[in-house]
Amino acid sequence: MPAAGDKRYLVLAEEHSADPHYGKTAHGIIRYGLTPVVAILDSTRAGEVQDGLPVLGSVNEALCFNPTTAVGLHQFLSDDPELADLAQRHGVELRDLRRPPGDLNVPTGANLQVPARIVLMVGSDCAIGKMTVALELDRAARARGVASVFVPTGQTGMAIAGWGIAVDAVVSDFVAGAAERLVVEGAERGGDLLFVEGQGAITHPAYSGVTLGLVHGSAPHAFVLCHQAGSTEHEGFPGHPLTALSELVDLHERISLRARPAKVAAVAVNTRFLDDDEARAAISDAAAETGLIADDPVRFGADRLLDAVLEHLPSGLSL
Amino acid sequence: MPAAGDKRYLVLAEEHSADPHYGKTAHGIIRYGLTPVVAILDSTRAGEVQDGLPVLGSVNEALCFNPTTAVGLHQFLSDDPELADLAQRHGVELRDLRRPPGDLNVPTGANLQVPARIVLMVGSDCAIGKMTVALELDRAARARGVASVFVPTGQTGMAIAGWGIAVDAVVSDFVAGAAERLVVEGAERGGDLLFVEGQGAITHPAYSGVTLGLVHGSAPHAFVLCHQAGSTEHEGFPGHPLTALSELVDLHERISLRARPAKVAAVAVNTRFLDDDEARAAISDAAAETGLIADDPVRFGADRLLDAVLEHLPSGLSL
Repeated sequence: MPAAGDKRYLVLAEEHSADPHYGKTAHGIIRYGLTPVVAILDSTRAGEVQDGLPVLGSVNEALCFNPTTAVGLHQFLSDDPELADLAQRHGVELRDLRRPPGDLNVPTGANLQVPARIVLMVGSDCAIGKMTVALELDRAARARGVASVFVPTGQTGMAIAGWGIAVDAVVSDFVAGAAERLVVEGAERGGDLLFVEGQGAITHPAYSGVTLGLVHGSAPHAFVLCHQAGSTEHEGFPGHPLTALSELVDLHERISLRARPAKVAAVAVNTRFLDDDEARAAISDAAAETGLIADDPVRFGADRLLDAVLEHLPSGLSL
Repeated sequence: MPAAGDKRYLVLAEEHSADPHYGKTAHGIIRYGLTPVVAILDSTRAGEVQDGLPVLGSVNEALCFNPTTAVGLHQFLSDDPELADLAQRHGVELRDLRRPPGDLNVPTGANLQVPARIVLMVGSDCAIGKMTVALELDRAARARGVASVFVPTGQTGMAIAGWGIAVDAVVSDFVAGAAERLVVEGAERGGDLLFVEGQGAITHPAYSGVTLGLVHGSAPHAFVLCHQAGSTEHEGFPGHPLTALSELVDLHERISLRARPAKVAAVAVNTRFLDDDEARAAISDAAAETGLIADDPVRFGADRLLDAVLEHLPSGLSL
């Protein structure tokens, strides 16, 4: 295996590189990854350029760019006997990001002992940019000299940061235990301030269990509530309306651990489908509805949200 | 395999038959099971009698009672190569109750189409008798001629009823999908009224994810809130106080599916550690705090709770 610093990614995104929802693994790795990406594989867009990278039609072409590692698939590769055999014969490591550690259990209470301030992203729905908000806040905090660490809880965050657990693949009994382990590791990695990637939504008709396990296991000191401007229904679940932002603020605060009550510090609004004026109006609406600072950290920078987060954290930690 | 009607259980409860918490599988099967139990295996209490059944010290003694099926273990037996081999050679079926079906996914929306009224047990903590409340309500409803079905979501409920899924063993992404499948099957089994076994608590520091997935996937029309009188802290999680009953009523109602808002219909109070006067006082306190009908269905019968549940269900179904 090449050392971390010598890695070069080939992103496998066949048929999905242009799709913002399903291609989010590829997008995240290209935009926020610590490892350089040399090319994207998607034969449906061969010859195009994305984010300054060539989109290629075959693995053979991609090999000319000398990648060391291919990322992007959702399946468990090591369960495929043919691939497992090929990998062994050629000395290639198959690493299934979504396969959880085998020794997970329930929380031990270590989450309440972590010597760091913990901020969890939550949201009105899935796939609205919670990971991106965490990455932008982490980047802004580090730019101010704060020892901030992004804590990955899903496959894309893991591919970006090089560690983590995909909590949605963990047996439901142990989701909170997995989240506890992640915040403990985030502090061990030097974080005085941890921005934990969120998953799902506590009101989501399919994924709420993942979310609530993460809320209780990561034991945050504060939440950042994420919302995509204009969304009114859970994506992919017609007939399931979103819950109002003000109600979500209240629900999260009341369902947070009684041993560590947490407030929503700010609202991150994803305005990617709006023009600048509409974006400002949507942000202003979210602030008015919740009485909280609101902003789109991708469009307008993360500093206002970061200020609001830092103000909400308990004192006693030098940030 | 003998036909269902010819089954006779030997309950394996080594070291645990007298423990109300860890022996709950054994207790539940003896008290509520459709299959007769012929003996209990627990060498630490050999020679005693429990619930009219002999407690035995060895499997050889137990064989004199001619059991067809042994139940009670928590491990996955079929993962043990020696047992799997023995079972195959002797034509014995090893059935791991906790192993989830391999084809689970997210909810499809079928939970909202189930032609039955659905009542989910929820609670202030784990292991306080939510399964027992569901079984007592189901029995009382059937005694009135209602086509009621108990829907098992854990290993003990499954051993009692002979079907179900242990939702806490399901990958967290699919808990709601598993819960949906269970209410669909409950209706297919002839239930006009489904009493769904609860798991955990939405405020539990370790198991809340399981609970919330069950809340959203089973899509109940009403909740019954279960509480053990006198408990003030999550059992086994010191430093994590229970949430007040009135707050739990409000939280459950507000976090219920927006596509199917549900109310708490009644409070079931477990008074097993109290005398009769104390029990009546605890029930009265719970009723006063919540403004709801409260009772202990094991001690005083389930009829008052059942009346309250039936009153809270939407009309249009002949019960």
